Amino acid sequence: MSNNTDAYVRQHQTRLLDELKDFLRIPSISTLPENKPDVERAAQFVAKSLQDAGLENVEIIPTAAHPLVYADWLHAPGKPTVLCYGHYDVQPPDPLDLWVSPPFEPVERDGNLYARGSADDKGQMYMHIKAVEALRAVTGTLPLNLKFLIEGEEECGGASVASYVEKNPQKLAADVALVSDTALYAEGLPTLCTGLRGLIYMELEATGPMRDLHSGLYGGAAPNAVYGLIELLAKAKDANGVIQIPGVYDDVVEPAAAEIESWQRLPFNEAEFLKKEVGSTELTGEPDRTVLERVWSRPTLEVHGIAGGFTAAGAKTVIPAKATAKVSMRMVPNQDPEKIIEAFKEWVKQNTPKGIVMEVRVLSSGSGLLVNPDHKAIAVAAKAFADVLGKQTVFVRSGGSIPIVGDFARNLHIPTILMGFGLPDDGLHSPNEKYRIENYYQGIMTIAHFFEQYGS
Amino acid sequence: MSNNTDAYVRQHQTRLLDELKDFLRIPSISTLPENKPDVERAAQFVAKSLQDAGLENVEIIPTAAHPLVYADWLHAPGKPTVLCYGHYDVQPPDPLDLWVSPPFEPVERDGNLYARGSADDKGQMYMHIKAVEALRAVTGTLPLNLKFLIEGEEECGGASVASYVEKNPQKLAADVALVSDTALYAEGLPTLCTGLRGLIYMELEATGPMRDLHSGLYGGAAPNAVYGLIELLAKAKDANGVIQIPGVYDDVVEPAAAEIESWQRLPFNEAEFLKKEVGSTELTGEPDRTVLERVWSRPTLEVHGIAGGFTAAGAKTVIPAKATAKVSMRMVPNQDPEKIIEAFKEWVKQNTPKGIVMEVRVLSSGSGLLVNPDHKAIAVAAKAFADVLGKQTVFVRSGGSIPIVGDFARNLHIPTILMGFGLPDDGLHSPNEKYRIENYYQGIMTIAHFFEQYGS
Repeated sequence: MSNNTDAYVRQHQTRLLDELKDFLRIPSISTLPENKPDVERAAQFVAKSLQDAGLENVEIIPTAAHPLVYADWLHAPGKPTVLCYGHYDVQPPDPLDLWVSPPFEPVERDGNLYARGSADDKGQMYMHIKAVEALRAVTGTLPLNLKFLIEGEEECGGASVASYVEKNPQKLAADVALVSDTALYAEGLPTLCTGLRGLIYMELEATGPMRDLHSGLYGGAAPNAVYGLIELLAKAKDANGVIQIPGVYDDVVEPAAAEIESWQRLPFNEAEFLKKEVGSTELTGEPDRTVLERVWSRPTLEVHGIAGGFTAAGAKTVIPAKATAKVSMRMVPNQDPEKIIEAFKEWVKQNTPKGIVMEVRVLSSGSGLLVNPDHKAIAVAAKAFADVLGKQTVFVRSGGSIPIVGDFARNLHIPTILMGFGLPDDGLHSPNEKYRIENYYQGIMTIAHFFEQYGS
Repeated sequence: MSNNTDAYVRQHQTRLLDELKDFLRIPSISTLPENKPDVERAAQFVAKSLQDAGLENVEIIPTAAHPLVYADWLHAPGKPTVLCYGHYDVQPPDPLDLWVSPPFEPVERDGNLYARGSADDKGQMYMHIKAVEALRAVTGTLPLNLKFLIEGEEECGGASVASYVEKNPQKLAADVALVSDTALYAEGLPTLCTGLRGLIYMELEATGPMRDLHSGLYGGAAPNAVYGLIELLAKAKDANGVIQIPGVYDDVVEPAAAEIESWQRLPFNEAEFLKKEVGSTELTGEPDRTVLERVWSRPTLEVHGIAGGFTAAGAKTVIPAKATAKVSMRMVPNQDPEKIIEAFKEWVKQNTPKGIVMEVRVLSSGSGLLVNPDHKAIAVAAKAFADVLGKQTVFVRSGGSIPIVGDFARNLHIPTILMGFGLPDDGLHSPNEKYRIENYYQGIMTIAHFFEQYGS
């Protein structure tokens, strides 16, 4: 039977790719107010795709921000129910001038599809819908019960879906959730992700003098908002990247020795990682930790953007009155975001330089999470993955954050299968984001295999 | 005779103000390429004003950037020659939303004229021209020889005028230069400035990874260009504002005890300075120095602007690949800019964080300067000032930089009279820059008195 869905995917692959391209042409940037109509359009595209695939009870659910899309198919009594989750919104494409082809005009190059959202997450969530289409086309039915919940705020905090999941545990009841928003550890290597970091995203605003001042007339005696912000943030980490905020490491749980050992067996090449993925002169971070530990099982503090004072071409000699920074902390499983936020705010209070007023605004927060690799659905997913890709499935973590996984655990009491088909160099959130076209096809096949084996 | 020029100013004051308003309406922002035509127009306005006032040999001198305007009147054999300098270019007006009235639509409010350039320096340089007009209208001639050199690049480095002065010492030969680009120490208090700080203006560019990276997937191991820049700059000063770059204080000459004492007699009120001028919670800087020392006779390091990563509304979780900052150092007399630039570059090399490549670009540099208050022209200027304002003239320094004063000293071997009529709260380089209208009139009168007394 699975062989038949594989054949269906191969037979229809051009159309399956064209449909994804149509989806990618919609600039559904959820964080920019001016793209709100595009985000709407993307929700409608998702609803129609679910309908066309044979899902039922398709709903576009309005929220305070961007709509959710729900659909289900519940005609397999006695069989398990899988809740498929994904997001149809994308990150802003800037800096635009670094894109080889425009971010919202999908282009094929070297076996890849280049577009914002191709890997994160439109290309991946769309595979779930196409797996349903393939199964129904080949078998006339579905092997288990399915619910779909697709959101449009994953890249800007995900507040609406979190509250919806909290309020609708009955409607969303399932045995397991399936999320494809992660990557294969390496090309061709089936990979399931068993751990995620959480994320606290904040904005800091520093105020110095009441207006921009002439640096000649006041320089030496007046506080500078940009410098005050710099002074504060520089104290947040030491030269090795160790976070200096008291209490931040208190609740960090070290991975089990077996897990660390399994990571050491992964085909990780530090020199290649530095050269091909990071592309800087050297790596940074805690020297007594392996690189995989640093990005998977250690908390971070990063500044994502900073702005203040005069930044156009040329020279202007002001002491800036205002400066802002976007700052995040990634948390590992067992760290409580509320506790970390409090610790951060207290640290800001203690360390704000003289003459500066500092405001901290928390934009979003979500905890880190671990999944038990012995759960039946995970075992079936590992087998389906291995069947299609022809290699044994490996278990990894991701340093990224998928807050919904925590919401599913907390409110629906179900584990989540993180079965992603991206590649490490896909350039998520970066210019020239791409998704390997073959991975798109193999993803549809693998998900169809998983549905079939989990339902049998 | 002087009383007659005073009367002339009073009689024509409405027209004298209207003409200045026309000048201020030209947005001659020298640092912005898009305003080049406006800068041209301002040069033509100056040339016509000089012509109309009776100056001769009026020339608009093209340069690599913005034109110089020259004029002279040399029909007083045996009398001294004064070289009048000023600038017709202005700083950018941003942040625009903080202006009460538009920056290039001059508006009178509470005895002040509000517009970008009203005090710095259009309103002040224009007084020189109007003093010539008044003297010629009242006496039919001029009491001494005059040369005018007006530039359009003072706010963006002044490269053209510096090279012109260096190449034309004969043409510009004079006994003394007159510059009105400073402020009265307090309203109604005649003030001559005898010292200026120099300025080195630099751009720093930090490069981390080869592209913006996902902070979840790489955070903890990849260098962050914004954070690298922050880390470096935070090391440049300690918490008291003491510059940490080796050698920076080596050549600093302390002011004479008598000068420091005279500063202590000035009507300086630290609480008012903090509240009305700076408007922050407290002042910063070297605790063992008075505020006037900090802003007049101590070197500074300031960050004027910083930009990098994602700074629009909302959240984006990138590790930025690039970040830039505009950084300046103010230098006191006797410090050598070249030596300080070398020290800064070496310090950057030694302190650049791991994984970051840092580029330093020097946009401009000029030394600090002291003027001998015993020079004859200075004494005459002090008397003319006292005559018109009715109080004894005080001698102060300015923490600002007027690089041309150094060029005149070096190439023409003449001192410069810094006779400015601004006020400390004029908001130079800030939103809502203003010039007190009465100071404009008194300035024209004082300059006419000075020309007359110096020529007699």
